Amino acid sequence: MAVEYDGSAFSGWQRLTRPGEEDRREEATVQASVEAALSFVAGQPIGTVCAGRTDAGVHARAQVIHFDTPVHRDPRGWMLGTTTRLPPSVCIRWCVPVADDFHARFSARARRYRYRLLNRPVRPALMRDYLGWERLPLDAAAMHHAAQALIGENDFSAFRTVHCQAPHARRDMQEITVRRDGEVVEFELQANAFLHHQVRNIVGSLLLVGRGEKPEGWIAALLEGRDRTRAGPTAPPGGLMFLHPLYPASWGLPAEVSLPPTPDER
Amino acid sequence: MAVEYDGSAFSGWQRLTRPGEEDRREEATVQASVEAALSFVAGQPIGTVCAGRTDAGVHARAQVIHFDTPVHRDPRGWMLGTTTRLPPSVCIRWCVPVADDFHARFSARARRYRYRLLNRPVRPALMRDYLGWERLPLDAAAMHHAAQALIGENDFSAFRTVHCQAPHARRDMQEITVRRDGEVVEFELQANAFLHHQVRNIVGSLLLVGRGEKPEGWIAALLEGRDRTRAGPTAPPGGLMFLHPLYPASWGLPAEVSLPPTPDER
Repeated sequence: MAVEYDGSAFSGWQRLTRPGEEDRREEATVQASVEAALSFVAGQPIGTVCAGRTDAGVHARAQVIHFDTPVHRDPRGWMLGTTTRLPPSVCIRWCVPVADDFHARFSARARRYRYRLLNRPVRPALMRDYLGWERLPLDAAAMHHAAQALIGENDFSAFRTVHCQAPHARRDMQEITVRRDGEVVEFELQANAFLHHQVRNIVGSLLLVGRGEKPEGWIAALLEGRDRTRAGPTAPPGGLMFLHPLYPASWGLPAEVSLPPTPDER
Repeated sequence: MAVEYDGSAFSGWQRLTRPGEEDRREEATVQASVEAALSFVAGQPIGTVCAGRTDAGVHARAQVIHFDTPVHRDPRGWMLGTTTRLPPSVCIRWCVPVADDFHARFSARARRYRYRLLNRPVRPALMRDYLGWERLPLDAAAMHHAAQALIGENDFSAFRTVHCQAPHARRDMQEITVRRDGEVVEFELQANAFLHHQVRNIVGSLLLVGRGEKPEGWIAALLEGRDRTRAGPTAPPGGLMFLHPLYPASWGLPAEVSLPPTPDER
C-alpha cells in the first residue's frame, strides 16, 4: 500500500505502543492510525512494516507499507475501506498484492525526499505546514553546486543526529538537486537509505552556503570532517516530504515506486 | 497592502462587527484580524477596504487593501510590524504608499481566481485545505471548451447565489482556462468583477460536463437561461484562491497586480 499523510499533527510514523494495546497516545502516530484502520477492515489485528520512518511534522506522498493477512479483499476494497477509517490527514493511495518475500523496507533500493522552503522577507501564511522559510536571499545555484560534493557512497556522520541508531553512517547518495521556482526553493534528494535527520541536516547546512555565510567548498569539508557539531542547524520538519521509495521493477509495483527494469528483467 | 491568507479557519474576509468594537467574534474574520494588527502598529484604529471579499474557507494569495492613516512608517515597517501581530494563517506580503484617490475596490479593473481540485478515487490527505476533490475521471479539455461560452460581457444570473446583493448580474468574463496537471485539475478565471459564489458555481457546473453527465453546449444554455436552479451545485470553498486584483499601471503598484501599461501611460 502507498500511504499519503500530512504529518503536521502526528508525532511521526512509528507507533509508540504495541498493536492492539489500547492507548490514547496511539492516535498521535501515523502507523497506529493506519494499523487501527486496517485491523477494522480485516476484522483482526494487522501490523505493518514501512519503507522509511518519518519524524514528527514530516509528510509523505507515498509511504509504502506491507502487511500479512489471511483475509481476502480486492485491492480497491482495502484502499477505500481503510481510507474511510482514517483521519482526514491520512489516506491510502493504492494497494497491490505482493509476493510473500516482498519487504517494504528491505526490498527498497532507494528513497526520495523533497524539502521546500519559502524564500522571502515575510513568513508563509498559505501552505505554512508544507514549507520551511528563509527570510534572507538564497543562491540556489551555489547550494546546488556545493551539494554535488555529497554524491556517491560516503560516511555521512556529519549529517546524522546524535540519536541516530544506525550501525554505520555509510550511505549512497544518488542525487541532490537544488532549484528555485519563484519564491520557493526546492531540494530533492535520493539515496539508497537515509540516516536520522540526514535530509534536514544537509538542507540546514546548505542554507549557510545559500546565504553566503560559508563557501561552496565548506560542504565537502563538512562531509570529510564527519563531525556533526560543525554542520548547520537541522531544518524544521514541515518543509520535508518523503516522496517515495524505489523497488526493483520485478516486484511489479506501480511505476511511481519502481526502478527502470534492468536488461535481465526486460 | 497585499494580504496573503489561509481562509480555512475564518468565516470569510468581511468583519462582522464595527472597528474598535470589542467582540470575540472579530477573531473569526480576516478583516478584523488585519485591522486589529494595523491598529496596533499605528497606535490608533484603522479601517480597511479590500479589492474583493472572500467567503469562509476561501484563500487569498494577494488580497489588496487600502487604508488612510496620518501615521508615518516606512512600507517595510508596516509589512513586518503588522505581520508580527497577525495569526499564522495571515501575513502582509507587501506595502506601498498610494495616491489619495486610489481605492482598493473601485480602482480595480479585474480580479483573478483559481480553483484546484484533486481528481482521483481517494480524497486528498496532503494539502486537503487547498483542494477540492472529484473521484470520477474528469475531461479537462471538454470543461475548457464548454467554459469558453462564458467569455464576454454576459448576465451571469445562472451562476449567482440567491444571497447575492449585487444590483445586477452583468459581468465581463475575460478568461477561463481549465487544465490538468497530473491528478490536479486547475481552473483559472478572470473577470472585471465576480458575483457572490460565481466562481464556485461555474466550477460546480463545469464538473457535470467534465464527468460526461452534460454535453459541452449545456454551459452556454445555462448562461442563456439565467436560472440558478438549473446550474450545478456550488463547489466547496477550500479549492478556491483569490489570486489577485488588477489595477491600471498608472497607480504604480507591484507588477503582480498591475495591468500592462496602455499606450497613453507608456
